[in-house]
Amino acid sequence: MTSQLDIDTVNAMVVEQYPGSRNRCVELGLDHAVAACDVTPIDIRPGGFIAGPTQFAVADCALWFLSFVGLGRIEPMALTSELSIRFLRPAIGDRLLCRATLEAVSRRSVIGTAHVWVDGQADRYTATAQGTYAVPLPR
Amino acid sequence: MTSQLDIDTVNAMVVEQYPGSRNRCVELGLDHAVAACDVTPIDIRPGGFIAGPTQFAVADCALWFLSFVGLGRIEPMALTSELSIRFLRPAIGDRLLCRATLEAVSRRSVIGTAHVWVDGQADRYTATAQGTYAVPLPR
Amino acid sequence: MTSQLDIDTVNAMVVEQYPGSRNRCVELGLDHAVAACDVTPIDIRPGGFIAGPTQFAVADCALWFLSFVGLGRIEPMALTSELSIRFLRPAIGDRLLCRATLEAVSRRSVIGTAHVWVDGQADRYTATAQGTYAVPLPR
Amino acid sequence: MTSQLDIDTVNAMVVEQYPGSRNRCVELGLDHAVAACDVTPIDIRPGGFIAGPTQFAVADCALWFLSFVGLGRIEPMALTSELSIRFLRPAIGDRLLCRATLEAVSRRSVIGTAHVWVDGQADRYTATAQGTYAVPLPR
Repeated sequence: MTSQLDIDTVNAMVVEQYPGSRNRCVELGLDHAVAACDVTPIDIRPGGFIAGPTQFAVADCALWFLSFVGLGRIEPMALTSELSIRFLRPAIGDRLLCRATLEAVSRRSVIGTAHVWVDGQADRYTATAQGTYAVPLPR
Repeated sequence: MTSQLDIDTVNAMVVEQYPGSRNRCVELGLDHAVAACDVTPIDIRPGGFIAGPTQFAVADCALWFLSFVGLGRIEPMALTSELSIRFLRPAIGDRLLCRATLEAVSRRSVIGTAHVWVDGQADRYTATAQGTYAVPLPR
Repeated sequence: MTSQLDIDTVNAMVVEQYPGSRNRCVELGLDHAVAACDVTPIDIRPGGFIAGPTQFAVADCALWFLSFVGLGRIEPMALTSELSIRFLRPAIGDRLLCRATLEAVSRRSVIGTAHVWVDGQADRYTATAQGTYAVPLPR
Repeated sequence: MTSQLDIDTVNAMVVEQYPGSRNRCVELGLDHAVAACDVTPIDIRPGGFIAGPTQFAVADCALWFLSFVGLGRIEPMALTSELSIRFLRPAIGDRLLCRATLEAVSRRSVIGTAHVWVDGQADRYTATAQGTYAVPLPR
């Protein structure tokens, strides 16, 4: 019996339990996870840039996947307790990626740092974030 | 000639320049602004709760409107430079509201604090946030 | 027997268990706490302003006292899990105050918003912060 | 004529203009800076741990030095505009180090990510932070 922590199983859970999410898992590592999101016209804010909330959403999702990495299992009820994000430069493109890296895991939380970029421009981050996911406590 | 900082003019700008945004201005004061968003099925995450990114989006938008209050004019190109958000309790309902309150205005930025709640439950905030909007610099 | 959540008992605990702290409790309410700190020459950074870390320290301490309010008891082992701070304007003066206001209490954490000002200028905040204190979990 | 961005010149500025600071520069790179601080009894909070504000101070200082790296010059009047910090595990030891890494530089700000650890335990960060330094604007 395994924890089945693989990309396809994670994405199947997202599709089933969070059908409104446009973010998908594209990579899972020992201490990181990568999420991706296709950009659509509704994501474009004044100036022609990808809006902040779209970038927040992919970062939040990458940290959710990272919490699965930290816990060693898919835990849909891991919840964001807090997240801070800084926008570094205008984001223009068709697809966003975000890599979240593990900072710490405890009984109560998973903490990570995340970087967002436009596909093809991994050397030019458009946002950087840090956040905490709360692990469900036993009752 | 006035700066036309009223709710209808703000919302007309949003509809025209940021058509994908589902957030609207519902109140503008001397030191605050309120944004609202109708919740749809795509906003629901596992557990049946309104997702974090939806709450972030309404907070980010309330702070955008607050930057207009701080500047005394509609400034579509005011951009979020950073925002931190904390989730306080599960959010369940049909409509989100967020009040942003002015903390400081300078030549370069507008800083505010924001509280998010579900319509009808203004005494039970679901999220609290603080953030900075960058004011466009003269070239 | 009561929880003895009063200012003198809080300060006696600080003096005994955290003797290096220069921050003291000056007010405890039903949903807030106020900390104060006398400014000394070591707190002055270039420009003649009170340094950021000194302002952070009084905010962190006010949130610690606020966690006692939230929990209804003095809990020295409540620990900051995260804190974000924004500096609003230069701070010049002899004494700093910080009021922390309760946002949420759960089994695992206390969340609050804090405002820092120089004594005598309560209408001109020098910093605003939000943070989370972790409540010790039962073993 | 050079910008004299070297460790000794940075520390000489700190000693002269910010004599109360106990943090020193120990490394400057092309995209990072490292600050260090000797821990003293006044830094110890209940539980025997190095207090949060001491860790914040070394992170804030590392980001200040990082702003010099980003700007290519020593700029004492670069000021923290905002900083968020997360505490990862208890910090116990005699000396703190913090490495700040550059995320972005613009006309108005320098943004970086910082990791704090106890000397000798660089594989076990005690805190992680991100923040923004404001660059003085021309008048």
